[in-house]
Amino acid sequence: MTNLLKLFDFVKQTTALSQINGFLGWDQETMMPKGSIEQRAQWMGHLSATLHERKIDPRIGEWLESIDSENLTEFESSQVRYIRRDYNRALKIPIDFASYLAITTSKSQGVWAEARSKDDFSMFLPILKEVLNLKRQEARMLSSTTLYDSLLNDFEPEMNSQDLESIFNRMRPRLIEIREKALISDEVPEVIGRFPKKIQLQLSRKLALAFGYDFDRGRLDLAVHPFSSGSGNDVRITTRVSENDPFNCLYSTIHEVGHATYEQNINKDFLFTPLGSGVSMGVHESQSRIYENQIGRSRAFTKFLHREMLGLFGDFGIKNADDFYKCVNGIRNGFIRTEADEVQYNLHIMLRFELEKALINDDLRAEDLEAAWNEAFLRDFGFPVDSASNGVLQDVHWSVGLFGYFPTYSLGNIYAGCLHKAMRADLPNLDNAFEYGNVSDAIDWLKENVQKYGGLRTPEATISHAIGGQPDEEPLLQYLEEKFGDINS
Amino acid sequence: MTNLLKLFDFVKQTTALSQINGFLGWDQETMMPKGSIEQRAQWMGHLSATLHERKIDPRIGEWLESIDSENLTEFESSQVRYIRRDYNRALKIPIDFASYLAITTSKSQGVWAEARSKDDFSMFLPILKEVLNLKRQEARMLSSTTLYDSLLNDFEPEMNSQDLESIFNRMRPRLIEIREKALISDEVPEVIGRFPKKIQLQLSRKLALAFGYDFDRGRLDLAVHPFSSGSGNDVRITTRVSENDPFNCLYSTIHEVGHATYEQNINKDFLFTPLGSGVSMGVHESQSRIYENQIGRSRAFTKFLHREMLGLFGDFGIKNADDFYKCVNGIRNGFIRTEADEVQYNLHIMLRFELEKALINDDLRAEDLEAAWNEAFLRDFGFPVDSASNGVLQDVHWSVGLFGYFPTYSLGNIYAGCLHKAMRADLPNLDNAFEYGNVSDAIDWLKENVQKYGGLRTPEATISHAIGGQPDEEPLLQYLEEKFGDINS
Repeated sequence: MTNLLKLFDFVKQTTALSQINGFLGWDQETMMPKGSIEQRAQWMGHLSATLHERKIDPRIGEWLESIDSENLTEFESSQVRYIRRDYNRALKIPIDFASYLAITTSKSQGVWAEARSKDDFSMFLPILKEVLNLKRQEARMLSSTTLYDSLLNDFEPEMNSQDLESIFNRMRPRLIEIREKALISDEVPEVIGRFPKKIQLQLSRKLALAFGYDFDRGRLDLAVHPFSSGSGNDVRITTRVSENDPFNCLYSTIHEVGHATYEQNINKDFLFTPLGSGVSMGVHESQSRIYENQIGRSRAFTKFLHREMLGLFGDFGIKNADDFYKCVNGIRNGFIRTEADEVQYNLHIMLRFELEKALINDDLRAEDLEAAWNEAFLRDFGFPVDSASNGVLQDVHWSVGLFGYFPTYSLGNIYAGCLHKAMRADLPNLDNAFEYGNVSDAIDWLKENVQKYGGLRTPEATISHAIGGQPDEEPLLQYLEEKFGDINS
Repeated sequence: MTNLLKLFDFVKQTTALSQINGFLGWDQETMMPKGSIEQRAQWMGHLSATLHERKIDPRIGEWLESIDSENLTEFESSQVRYIRRDYNRALKIPIDFASYLAITTSKSQGVWAEARSKDDFSMFLPILKEVLNLKRQEARMLSSTTLYDSLLNDFEPEMNSQDLESIFNRMRPRLIEIREKALISDEVPEVIGRFPKKIQLQLSRKLALAFGYDFDRGRLDLAVHPFSSGSGNDVRITTRVSENDPFNCLYSTIHEVGHATYEQNINKDFLFTPLGSGVSMGVHESQSRIYENQIGRSRAFTKFLHREMLGLFGDFGIKNADDFYKCVNGIRNGFIRTEADEVQYNLHIMLRFELEKALINDDLRAEDLEAAWNEAFLRDFGFPVDSASNGVLQDVHWSVGLFGYFPTYSLGNIYAGCLHKAMRADLPNLDNAFEYGNVSDAIDWLKENVQKYGGLRTPEATISHAIGGQPDEEPLLQYLEEKFGDINS
């Protein structure tokens, strides 16, 4: 066996163990009895330790050195690129540090939850400072470029914060302009009545199937927060149900199906290689967003969804398709990122990006974070934050050390805008089928042009390949201007 | 850190990984989407390989050698005993052989299922010969004593087939005598009507709680075959439902709760040590059997169950408690081990023990197995086998290489007989509470005298400690003679 094959064989086993680790996370959120939480932490701790031992195994370095990079296929050289990156990263972060960080963020998440429930930022501040301190240490150990970019690149390889900042600065005024014009009027009706859980789940399954989710290689369960988990032939999704608000469940499902089908549709030869998962958080989010928004909230598809819902739930206060479309796409004032519309969602992200970058770069003290949040929110949204739980304490991310993660959500929207434009150019008649709930041509396009490639290319190259050019924010902004100009007219 | 602590620390991680491996098995039988089967096999294969690497790690040998056995506590020396046994075993079986055996038995199980569905032993014969050949090779590698005992000791350490044979030879005529006297008469009514799945599961949960199952550290799901899986604070059980036959679901649940509470009740300090699981298959089965039979099928408890069922299902054809007791304990002619009553179950086991010992010892050719089965069945049960699926093909065990496993079922019955006698001597008034569904004193007795000790002592010493003497078959036989003499009178 050549050293290349030995290397790939070794990594295959590591990848399998890593998939098992992810699977333990799924069970923890869905099936696990509550009394098992400590035992589960032990399981995951010991599996992580085993994984770390494998990731720093010196044989990897020897094999990597002995490989003749000249004569590799794209499939081989992509794998080697990932393996080299992961090996170097693993060598930089001592296992004791990683364990301490994991313990601290686990504790921190509990403190954050309590602080949020008590609306008290000062309660969260001490442990946030600890987490921040550790993440800055970690960034220094990784030190690929700037501190912030070191963290960002864990989620979005080869992206940098300077480019992101330029993009966001160009986007902000135009998003605010769209918002000002399209802020929902009181005349648009809202849904009324009760939407039984069982029927919501039934419709969710139907939507999941329509959007290409393969239930033979996955399953749909309930969890506190919707998520998608797994890769290859075992990709499971969750949703949640509010009986007053059917869109929560339905659009969460479509969103998670976007993540899940991406994983399910990757080239089968990539399974158990580093290429067998979605290439980055940004590209992953582009799939969930285009499923949910550009397709799921399109005028054409909402016609279908409206009819379906009338059939299943009876009269729920919205009788015509145009009102339904407006209701599903309404731009409303609100504090919460996860409840935001397609336009304002990005404003939420930019605010977080600005603040977390300042925290990591030591341009903002954690003590001043709440005031800085409230000031930026008033500036971008035009009204003041009324409580910490509606402001700086609303997201779990910082408590668990996820700095550098937020911008990938907007990057996903930007990529989705590019992909949507290219897809519509290739398939100009999609809306005819969308009106009947048939989105398979769109899904097939995404599968063929994005999803099947998994991690073969870099994130940006993945999108470039699909759209035939460099991605930028313009298609997203034009799509939003057109859609929300139209809604308001 | 001393070498002893290093050893225990190393084994802790191995134990955690081993628990994860078991958990993957649970998911496979309950939740896993069917299209994930190959990926799951890869997961388990890679995890097994990781486990094997750890089990033969030469540091284990060095640590073991350096330990001063003189100054160990019972807790420590028991762990060392297990670790030494597992280490020696792992060194004897090359990983390639273990993998090949795993692949062959996996294939063989499929062939067996098809042969059984077609009632054709000749279809199963070629791969059975392969499996048998491999198991004989394995037995030679292990070679603790005789070939058969090497396999037996994987499930029941320190037991030997000569003792088993003596015990079984003493039991057989008395069991046959009980059977002859108590074979059910036509006058005993059988249940009629439909027993809705939902209500059966509701009652199963109630029974599980009554028998001490902690749902905060476990869960109950449906599966094709009932089983219990896990240890410590994550012990999950499954059951199955036949809407014509409520006893299948209810008594399966009680049986599995016996296995599960054993695991749940082990001393918490033993978790992640080799002592943190049930000590042997025989002792495990003693718990499930005493829950199911000596308690669950007692005259007193069936009074309670009868009332419960009347309340939940309405009239189901059995109006009085005495008839209900007879129905639940009826001795009926039948081919199938898993459907057999408390008496004939042991005859089924003895038949398998006799045949599998002959196969392993090369005293019986696989080609002659079906004829040998049919001959022995006629001898022990008094009527001829009508088809291979009702005879030699009925059990999955041999197809997956489980030779030496069957006798542990009867050993469990024998141990249950001993424990029941000792428990009744300690707690003479149990029946008063049983009549109201309260079995907690009995369960507490088992917890305090057997379950909490986990693997601290050898299997036989575990039982001896609980009953204050050497276990033998006499209490089981006396219990059966009394119970079934009484039913018939």
